[in-house]
Amino acid sequence: MTIQSKFSRLGTDNAPGQEVRQGQDGTAFLLGDNLQGRRVDFSHGDVDAHEPTPGSFEIFSAGVAVGGAQAYTEYRGDLGIREELAARLADFTGAPVDGRDGMIVTPGTQGALFLAVASTVARGDKVAIVQPDYFANRKLVEFFEGEMLPVQMAYREVGPGQAGLDLDGLEAAFRAGAKVFLFSNPNNPAGVVYSRDEIARIAALAAQYGATVIVDQLYSRLLYTSASYTHLRAMDLAPENVVTIMGPSKTESLSGYRLGVAFGSAEVIARMEKLQAIVSLRAAGYSQAVLRTWFNEPEGWMADRIAQHQAIRDDLLALFRSIDGCFARTPEAGSYLFPHLPALTIPYGEFVKALRLQADVIVTPGTEFSPHAGDSIRLNFSQDHAAAVEAVQRLAALVERYRA
Amino acid sequence: MTIQSKFSRLGTDNAPGQEVRQGQDGTAFLLGDNLQGRRVDFSHGDVDAHEPTPGSFEIFSAGVAVGGAQAYTEYRGDLGIREELAARLADFTGAPVDGRDGMIVTPGTQGALFLAVASTVARGDKVAIVQPDYFANRKLVEFFEGEMLPVQMAYREVGPGQAGLDLDGLEAAFRAGAKVFLFSNPNNPAGVVYSRDEIARIAALAAQYGATVIVDQLYSRLLYTSASYTHLRAMDLAPENVVTIMGPSKTESLSGYRLGVAFGSAEVIARMEKLQAIVSLRAAGYSQAVLRTWFNEPEGWMADRIAQHQAIRDDLLALFRSIDGCFARTPEAGSYLFPHLPALTIPYGEFVKALRLQADVIVTPGTEFSPHAGDSIRLNFSQDHAAAVEAVQRLAALVERYRA
Repeated sequence: MTIQSKFSRLGTDNAPGQEVRQGQDGTAFLLGDNLQGRRVDFSHGDVDAHEPTPGSFEIFSAGVAVGGAQAYTEYRGDLGIREELAARLADFTGAPVDGRDGMIVTPGTQGALFLAVASTVARGDKVAIVQPDYFANRKLVEFFEGEMLPVQMAYREVGPGQAGLDLDGLEAAFRAGAKVFLFSNPNNPAGVVYSRDEIARIAALAAQYGATVIVDQLYSRLLYTSASYTHLRAMDLAPENVVTIMGPSKTESLSGYRLGVAFGSAEVIARMEKLQAIVSLRAAGYSQAVLRTWFNEPEGWMADRIAQHQAIRDDLLALFRSIDGCFARTPEAGSYLFPHLPALTIPYGEFVKALRLQADVIVTPGTEFSPHAGDSIRLNFSQDHAAAVEAVQRLAALVERYRA
Repeated sequence: MTIQSKFSRLGTDNAPGQEVRQGQDGTAFLLGDNLQGRRVDFSHGDVDAHEPTPGSFEIFSAGVAVGGAQAYTEYRGDLGIREELAARLADFTGAPVDGRDGMIVTPGTQGALFLAVASTVARGDKVAIVQPDYFANRKLVEFFEGEMLPVQMAYREVGPGQAGLDLDGLEAAFRAGAKVFLFSNPNNPAGVVYSRDEIARIAALAAQYGATVIVDQLYSRLLYTSASYTHLRAMDLAPENVVTIMGPSKTESLSGYRLGVAFGSAEVIARMEKLQAIVSLRAAGYSQAVLRTWFNEPEGWMADRIAQHQAIRDDLLALFRSIDGCFARTPEAGSYLFPHLPALTIPYGEFVKALRLQADVIVTPGTEFSPHAGDSIRLNFSQDHAAAVEAVQRLAALVERYRA
């Protein structure tokens, strides 16, 4: 494979946040005038509307004051910070975490995902992934020349409290030789949480077939009323190799510091560190200090944050459901909405462009998450509440303008 | 290739800064008492002794205050910062830099190196690298399953002002099919600068054979009196694909922010950004703001920093040259010393361990940089001046203790 062909499928044109690199050409399909209103970029959360954890900047400053010891940590991150986090993550996930040998601090959860896939997937290895799921999962498997075995998640067909994963399909993937199962829970983009039964069955299947499980739990703290979350790593039947990935970049709005952690299998974590040594050396040393605020927020702060997001979620859901022919399942966690749009006179990809150019509303096309989700769009609703409502009102107006 | 075999050669046990993960076992070879003195870790610079650029923390703080726009930049970094840097780097290197399409901001220069190699080396591609050179170069080529064609640098045999690269060897590598040439200038670990003639010939050869050149210029600002530096990218005969890598983590002591840049070939940079999207998304957004201080330091600050390092260099050189049988070439740039030690009664690898356990002196074994440099050690002398002198005195005492 040439380097050109290796990169040809690694497109970022529609990746969240990259819209700025898109040109203005090919807009002959646009109808009508622009809709006025405050620009909302639903491709990622608005950390101005939902500010970073209180005290995070002060802890960063203290890290800078520490100097060299904070700037140059082990590649896997500062030991003191790892041990502090290990205790809190053990508490949160319900199973022991080994801060010394079973954890690595990375530049963002993206960094953790990259290292975890790179450390478990060799060329030609079969990897089960979910559709829809986080868009980078597919790209990571492709980059390392693994073979993807997609498993469908029928989240539209099942009731609340379950994701709708095709468990028979997952078993078929394992039987076909999948050595790794990579998925996000809560699911990005659909916002659904896997039920205890689903997680138990995933764990048992992975153990039975000797597969490694990489579970991206980025949004597992942002659970709405009545949602119940099961940590795969704490299941009795959990497979030997589980790597859990989390980070404070979303719920806690600490994205600007680029921090993530992976914890679990010491063998996989050791490989991840070897690789981090040539990928980026370490997460920014000073930034690592900010992890001291994580799972250590002021009393009531997380409950407030969740309540604010739940209120935005409910208003946007009502708006989407008032659009004739639009389906939107209620997210049980996280800050993503993944509505399906009704039939339009233009391709959905062009509608996404129309939204940006005519309504100053940026969303991510569903095809980034699944080839079967072309009629969906993803919105990160961690936004200013009023601005988000007005933006979805403009979106609804454009749906009517382009309705088939 | 299994994932285990892929990682088997990616050792970090002797990588700089990882000594903390080494055990205490296998120390029966140690002779005599420990030498007392302040611990010096020559595996990296001491940013407490040589502090970060004045104003860097304030610029970072201003970045945090900007909020979301600074936290979420394009994957290749904030456009305003890229354009500001492009002008300064064009000025510094003597050739135009395209901030919009020909530059990417990365998590450290390590991040830039990783992306540059990943974006130019496909499996089975031949890559010319220098021996000795930065230890990650070899590991990167191995990780991407390229084939290494080593070219020797006879820096011990040539006079000041040239690196001693075997240019006929380089041409032979290109003739044998090397598609990429990857090297550092100033050379890490030897501290030598390539002459204008050497750079001109490298550029001409790469152009003639259609090869891509990746040049790591991390230390190109820290030039000692009388050293003269040639930027490959500014040569008349430069090949089409040149990627230059720099960053403020060394001379400017900004390592704790993890910042690097790569600039040059728009085609390669575009691939690097596609990959960064799945490796780490972007350099930490807030950290990127710190680049505004780069090539923008207070008047006289860089000259002072260079003078301080030159004074340390000269004292340590004198100490090494007073050790019978020790060879140390004068570094013309950067903060690395790479002395060759005389014959010892114990393997050099054990001597490095003895230094750490008996003298609290940490150095990096020469084998990290070349299989032919087993009798060398690398010291980053960006340290507290007095502590560094005392540490090398202890090192000299241990050489006598273990002398063959």
